[in-house]
Amino acid sequence: MSLIENLQWRHAVKAYNPTKKVSQENIDKIVEAARLAPTSSGLQPFKLLVVENQELKEKLVKGALNPECMRDASHVLIFAAWDRYTEERIDYIYDMTTDERGLPRGRFGSYTDQIKGIYLNETVEENHAHIARQAYIALGLALAQAAELKIDSTPVEGFDNAHIDEVLNLKEHNLKSVLIMYVGYADDENDWLKNMKKVRLPKEEFVIEYK
Amino acid sequence: MSLIENLQWRHAVKAYNPTKKVSQENIDKIVEAARLAPTSSGLQPFKLLVVENQELKEKLVKGALNPECMRDASHVLIFAAWDRYTEERIDYIYDMTTDERGLPRGRFGSYTDQIKGIYLNETVEENHAHIARQAYIALGLALAQAAELKIDSTPVEGFDNAHIDEVLNLKEHNLKSVLIMYVGYADDENDWLKNMKKVRLPKEEFVIEYK
Repeated sequence: MSLIENLQWRHAVKAYNPTKKVSQENIDKIVEAARLAPTSSGLQPFKLLVVENQELKEKLVKGALNPECMRDASHVLIFAAWDRYTEERIDYIYDMTTDERGLPRGRFGSYTDQIKGIYLNETVEENHAHIARQAYIALGLALAQAAELKIDSTPVEGFDNAHIDEVLNLKEHNLKSVLIMYVGYADDENDWLKNMKKVRLPKEEFVIEYK
Repeated sequence: MSLIENLQWRHAVKAYNPTKKVSQENIDKIVEAARLAPTSSGLQPFKLLVVENQELKEKLVKGALNPECMRDASHVLIFAAWDRYTEERIDYIYDMTTDERGLPRGRFGSYTDQIKGIYLNETVEENHAHIARQAYIALGLALAQAAELKIDSTPVEGFDNAHIDEVLNLKEHNLKSVLIMYVGYADDENDWLKNMKKVRLPKEEFVIEYK
């Protein structure tokens, strides 16, 4: 199936079957799609936390708007973004990149100096706002990958970030939770959205073309 | 090819061949992938501006960090997000949704009251920060769709938003430019990134698993 067919197929599942687990092989593919996502300047400023452990899920549930979904989903993926940009983090990524490409370290030095000049003069809040956006690109691709595998999923905002961060000790990792994605198999009887039509703005209202 | 293979194939193209144009059929598919993107509460708070007109591209070029790419790309896609949430805009989307689903208007009234209670008490800046994030999901899917079609693309931040907004009269539409995506066919000789290895953090550094 094409990407468009997969996107038509998916919806934000509202109830999961707790007895059906997603295989490690398929979780690995969803993670891989997120890992391959492009990010601003290639900095990959987020990590993906994959929670299968039921005991840990139960601790996280207090921070969820939809506790049953979190509890019953096979896996809970948390996109956790860098709290801010630092010189060390930028250098780490660019040193890795030049090493992997067989180029001398510092080959992109004038570029990294330029982005450091911008980011390191911003507030922590400005930094994090920019970083958090990058995780949304990866979320889109992870959702598309789940759909390609005919695995159900739910993209989630509006949770209690402070609770999630505390349970996962994210502060110690210099990370902040940004997005959650439930992955699993729907409980069709209780998934009230399942049989409702997917609605989007018609193309004429969504696009403005300048030919 | 699978999504993962398509994501491995793509890169942020650094030079376009100005003589090779993308067909309308393929542009329509890229637009459709973006249109199908999930958004927070299904509000679809952005539009996609598709600029093929060369004269208009020349006017926009002043706002680009990479003017040659913008000039030479077949199409320039601008993701333009609502400046803020309003009661009318939320109702418009939910009225359309209930109408399309054959449900009575107001069927999701308690939910829309809840999100209005949040958004309409935020500042315009807080609203727009949340809205802008949604466009990144669509960008990811549009890039994946271009890759599926073996069409080259470049995701772009760091442009002169004020210039782009002015040339396209976005303020009149209550929109603000958030992201740009160039679409076209690479000029392989001048695309310096083409033959460089795609580098990502290894999986062990990207993922934390809790089994």
